Amino acid sequence: MKAPQNPTLAEVGEQAAINVIAAHAPSPRNGDDAAVLDHDAPNSRTVVTTDMLVEGRHFRLDWSTPAEIGRKAITQNFADVEAMGARPIAALLALSVPAHTRLEFVSELARGIGDRVGDYGAELVGGDITDGDAVVVSVTAVGQLGGSLAELRLDQARPGQILVASGEIGASAAGLALLRRFGRDGVPREFLPLVSSHCAARVSEGRGFVARSAGVSAMTDNSDGLVADTTTIARRSNVSINLDPAAIAPSPLMRQAAEVLEADAWEWVLSGGEDHTLLGTTFRAAPTGFRVIGSVDHRSEGEVLLDGRAPSWNKGWNSFA
Amino acid sequence: MKAPQNPTLAEVGEQAAINVIAAHAPSPRNGDDAAVLDHDAPNSRTVVTTDMLVEGRHFRLDWSTPAEIGRKAITQNFADVEAMGARPIAALLALSVPAHTRLEFVSELARGIGDRVGDYGAELVGGDITDGDAVVVSVTAVGQLGGSLAELRLDQARPGQILVASGEIGASAAGLALLRRFGRDGVPREFLPLVSSHCAARVSEGRGFVARSAGVSAMTDNSDGLVADTTTIARRSNVSINLDPAAIAPSPLMRQAAEVLEADAWEWVLSGGEDHTLLGTTFRAAPTGFRVIGSVDHRSEGEVLLDGRAPSWNKGWNSFA
Repeated sequence: MKAPQNPTLAEVGEQAAINVIAAHAPSPRNGDDAAVLDHDAPNSRTVVTTDMLVEGRHFRLDWSTPAEIGRKAITQNFADVEAMGARPIAALLALSVPAHTRLEFVSELARGIGDRVGDYGAELVGGDITDGDAVVVSVTAVGQLGGSLAELRLDQARPGQILVASGEIGASAAGLALLRRFGRDGVPREFLPLVSSHCAARVSEGRGFVARSAGVSAMTDNSDGLVADTTTIARRSNVSINLDPAAIAPSPLMRQAAEVLEADAWEWVLSGGEDHTLLGTTFRAAPTGFRVIGSVDHRSEGEVLLDGRAPSWNKGWNSFA
Repeated sequence: MKAPQNPTLAEVGEQAAINVIAAHAPSPRNGDDAAVLDHDAPNSRTVVTTDMLVEGRHFRLDWSTPAEIGRKAITQNFADVEAMGARPIAALLALSVPAHTRLEFVSELARGIGDRVGDYGAELVGGDITDGDAVVVSVTAVGQLGGSLAELRLDQARPGQILVASGEIGASAAGLALLRRFGRDGVPREFLPLVSSHCAARVSEGRGFVARSAGVSAMTDNSDGLVADTTTIARRSNVSINLDPAAIAPSPLMRQAAEVLEADAWEWVLSGGEDHTLLGTTFRAAPTGFRVIGSVDHRSEGEVLLDGRAPSWNKGWNSFA
């Protein structure tokens, strides 16, 4: 008889699952009823946010590897911390998985999480794992906002500022369109970078912290779509934002993919979302790692314009729609 | 034509759901990419924990009202904060619900959450809502540990201490057994307090904070079962714990329910869990709101004993089992 090579959670139980998670994402703060986090400095503050990924809605198990799902869950939560100008320091993972799930799935998911929190110099400090019909990955991110500078809020854009961005725009939506047409195994090799951008967005670590130090006043991340997310800043700040088409034009690879799919690459850029691009406004020069993609004006009829006109694509992500 | 009286999330969309949540659990910190929490004092620390409730596993929609589910989600998360000796100050809610769910369900769930965070003087500071096949309620709790006293850890029980408890023990399991036999509508009226204990455990607020001030050194909450949870303290602290049968004996109501169900009320007391009773160890007198239920000894063969003998019921909750 062979020993079980690839056991399920029903076979090994909850503690084995907790052990593989802790092996890939260890922390001395983990393992009590709750984790205790020290504060760096007398006037530091704590930033918290949560985002839930549901199988079939936010990822598909035949499109994403478990490690990519783990990376994506951390990236999108930490992007919200960075969008406040804070430094991500910790994450908590609440995970629902069916009992027939392989332990290896949990291990690989934890590897993606552990790698990604490590990229930021952060830790997975706690969590919960439970039986459930679908895979649901709920992450809470904790960040530290050091010093007395204000946090980067949605309502702090001012006329006369430039709009700056760090990260890709539209690549995630292009990857999703390719997966829908071809499935993971059928996507032409040259387009795999776009698929990667969808399954686990590439975002540089620490750019929000840099932006706050460098004079950015308002910031968010592109999670629901470029027009949708900049519209949120524009409405909250009571300004207009004018996007520069030359600065956000689809990349050659995206244009090539659009040709194959007979799609409009501008839809991916303007409505796509899930790139987690950091979008900020500032009176000063673009901080290191950012490029200028538009300008902030006094409020006009349209809240977000593309070269002075209403953009052709302006829908964003909406659950239940 | 009548206006829709009881719309679904598919009809009203994500923003309407966010609005009813914010109406029942408002906070000025909510509404940006992440919430910013101030620190009370230079040497305060932050405590974080997360727990996920899955429909069909942790609650049933035909047994619990949405408000009870909300209360339960907060109570069990805040109990983990209290078990560190910290004061709960904030919660985050990540919620998955099917699109056919009534907006009223979300509103009632949020009412239960808002009431319960209010009991603690805390706030719901952020969240995420998404479409999903099952109702999944994932809460993260944030607490504040003021001053320089140590947190209440699992490994801080010492021989010669007493074991103290705040809250009911076994009532939740009794309520669950009644629901399994009779369903919510069929439970005899006299047993409804036990059903309430199951659907939304009653726990006094602030007892963990009191315990830390009053000399308790180790603490946890009874979530998996009295023997299972005290065994965790015993193992981590390398001690034995002897439970006093007279102090934890089933209540008259529990004994009455056990008679009707032909069950053993001691199983509910020793293995039940989900009461979120705070369990602590101290060399000093029981703090206000606590009673003595046992003693801590040098390590012996059994980690947790009942009047010096191995308890007849010692299984605890295990997902995937």
